[in-house]
Amino acid sequence: MTSVRVAGVGSTHFGTHPERTSRDLFAEAGVSALADAGVPHADVEFVHYGNFAGGLVEGQGHTGPLAAEALGVDAPATRYEAACASSGVAFREAVRAVRAGDADVVVAGGAERLSHLDTAETTAALASAADELWEGRAGATFPAVYALMADAYFGEFGGDRTDLAHVAVKNHANAMGNPHAQFQREITVEEVLDAPPVAEPLGLLDACPITDGASAVVLVSEEYAAANDVDAPVGVTGSGQGGDRLALADRAHLARTPAATEAAEAAYADADIVPGDVDVAEVHDCFTIAEVLALEALGFYEHGEAVGAARAGETTRDGRLPVNLSGGLKAKGHPVGATGTSQIAELTALLRGDHTNSDAVPDAEVGLAHNAGGTVASAVVHVLEVVA
Amino acid sequence: MTSVRVAGVGSTHFGTHPERTSRDLFAEAGVSALADAGVPHADVEFVHYGNFAGGLVEGQGHTGPLAAEALGVDAPATRYEAACASSGVAFREAVRAVRAGDADVVVAGGAERLSHLDTAETTAALASAADELWEGRAGATFPAVYALMADAYFGEFGGDRTDLAHVAVKNHANAMGNPHAQFQREITVEEVLDAPPVAEPLGLLDACPITDGASAVVLVSEEYAAANDVDAPVGVTGSGQGGDRLALADRAHLARTPAATEAAEAAYADADIVPGDVDVAEVHDCFTIAEVLALEALGFYEHGEAVGAARAGETTRDGRLPVNLSGGLKAKGHPVGATGTSQIAELTALLRGDHTNSDAVPDAEVGLAHNAGGTVASAVVHVLEVVA
Repeated sequence: MTSVRVAGVGSTHFGTHPERTSRDLFAEAGVSALADAGVPHADVEFVHYGNFAGGLVEGQGHTGPLAAEALGVDAPATRYEAACASSGVAFREAVRAVRAGDADVVVAGGAERLSHLDTAETTAALASAADELWEGRAGATFPAVYALMADAYFGEFGGDRTDLAHVAVKNHANAMGNPHAQFQREITVEEVLDAPPVAEPLGLLDACPITDGASAVVLVSEEYAAANDVDAPVGVTGSGQGGDRLALADRAHLARTPAATEAAEAAYADADIVPGDVDVAEVHDCFTIAEVLALEALGFYEHGEAVGAARAGETTRDGRLPVNLSGGLKAKGHPVGATGTSQIAELTALLRGDHTNSDAVPDAEVGLAHNAGGTVASAVVHVLEVVA
Repeated sequence: MTSVRVAGVGSTHFGTHPERTSRDLFAEAGVSALADAGVPHADVEFVHYGNFAGGLVEGQGHTGPLAAEALGVDAPATRYEAACASSGVAFREAVRAVRAGDADVVVAGGAERLSHLDTAETTAALASAADELWEGRAGATFPAVYALMADAYFGEFGGDRTDLAHVAVKNHANAMGNPHAQFQREITVEEVLDAPPVAEPLGLLDACPITDGASAVVLVSEEYAAANDVDAPVGVTGSGQGGDRLALADRAHLARTPAATEAAEAAYADADIVPGDVDVAEVHDCFTIAEVLALEALGFYEHGEAVGAARAGETTRDGRLPVNLSGGLKAKGHPVGATGTSQIAELTALLRGDHTNSDAVPDAEVGLAHNAGGTVASAVVHVLEVVA
């Protein structure tokens, strides 16, 4: 099995770009990634593209070939859709293609454009990541289903809104120096607690923003890297995917995300590591409670133990396991289809030592990315390691 | 590399099922396929699901996990979208997963629901398979872009509407005994020529219908088949994918589909065969002209030579290369996201000898499936062979 390297990464600024199309955003991220890799466009063999709601919000399906065209490459292209995990899945299948020897160079990425919609349209688009028949029609917005999970967590394990507020404060602090981040301003626990409620117990500052943006990653085989003198010190050593019922009503526990555990266990086995080997992690914090659930599902904490992690400083930049040094979805932003490969891009830079927050993890060798779709009905976990 | 077998296939009736959801349709096809395979639900390791317009027409994204749930399996699931080639791509990535040793059992399939829409909504949904910015906004419907291709073909190579009418007549005749087919009635050349124009030179009977339906295929490794005494005489020996610009204006030729050639050449090389080895083919005949373009792109005819093939009886059930014995998209129907795996299902039955039209190809050993997205901006080709 061929070893897979991350040769280059790229990201647009995450924010509001209502005047730009998804394809335009993806082109910027993809061209940046190829330039970062020093890989010529002509060598790209497949484009794997994550996009969630293009059909619904731009009237455009079949966005794989459009992504390839925007990037300026002649290569077969496929769109992957798993809600907020769309580009995580696109990346995973790119890893498989290189490992299987089907390609030496694959660009995986994603893009999303949402800010041109009005609030009702955005709410409907995001709700389509959950179960339209059994949740959406019952009036459950996407924040509402996460609020149910937060409420269940508090009821089963304890913790409170202040614990969650520390997650938001941490991730905003981490984003301060990130030029791609939507929010580059620090917030306080008091601001989070005083923010308007979105869906109790979650307030506005417990939620990630609506974001337009794109990200891309260039994956190459180690043979290609060696033969073409491509500097690609970070390898993809573990990949896993998990699935669950879309509707919360069909789950055994509202405060657990077993799909993430399934994905993580597969990725750990693939990489032959244990959770304790991970030095730095990017996890899917679409809401503050989601980061807590992720840390537990990934095996970094026992169930019920992670809610106080940010407050205790364990996951801050100076903590024992820095989480979301990029700013996370919370502060870097969450352009749905772009988030999975954004995490890979940020983690790669952190491990290479050229991220604005690399100084927080100067000796990091092993990174983990956790990308989730919906209320974690889809989960994708990747392990990246410094291999050269 | 593990050898991949088709262990079972399933399909709903293709037609109008406005009272059913996509997930319900997929459940029927998937359960049928598992029953046909004799493979227990618990052994399914991934579900690969093709769906084109669920976000746009059902307000439901993230349909991978829903498909797995509907099927009654606990397994990670991903949705693939490449317009009309969605389940072709889903199948291709399932083949790769089994070959790579990542899974022994994968269900690949797809579903689509369109008939509940009004004509304007359907037209908009289908147009989103082409370029919304450069074609859709210019008023080009999906039939219109294929009409441009037909017109270009006639201009460059000759041929006429009567030649194309024979494609429709042939495919309707083939569908007569297919219980899954939307149309089980013979038509005449005169009826095709007299049908109302949809987009000149294409008339209503040059076009496939609007269809609701689902299909599914169970893929297994040869090791799994042997260990579990699963009867799976048909193997997947070749897989290829090609890509092209979405907008016709960006192409060098309107009357050629190089993405299909790219996909076919990769699949032929993978299977180590040449076009002349193919005994029976299912090709993507969303319009009559599309079958002609496919036969040329796949290497069965030189450019400009296939337009008279059906009229000459070369591709009829008694011809030297029977094409679309299922009835094709034209007469079996075209539930967009379900079509790719429907072709695989029909071809498998033809090769196994249990298809209603197997008597037309009693000695067939090699089959080819060609699934195209949009105006062939995406193409997926698979080679199936009797291997046991």
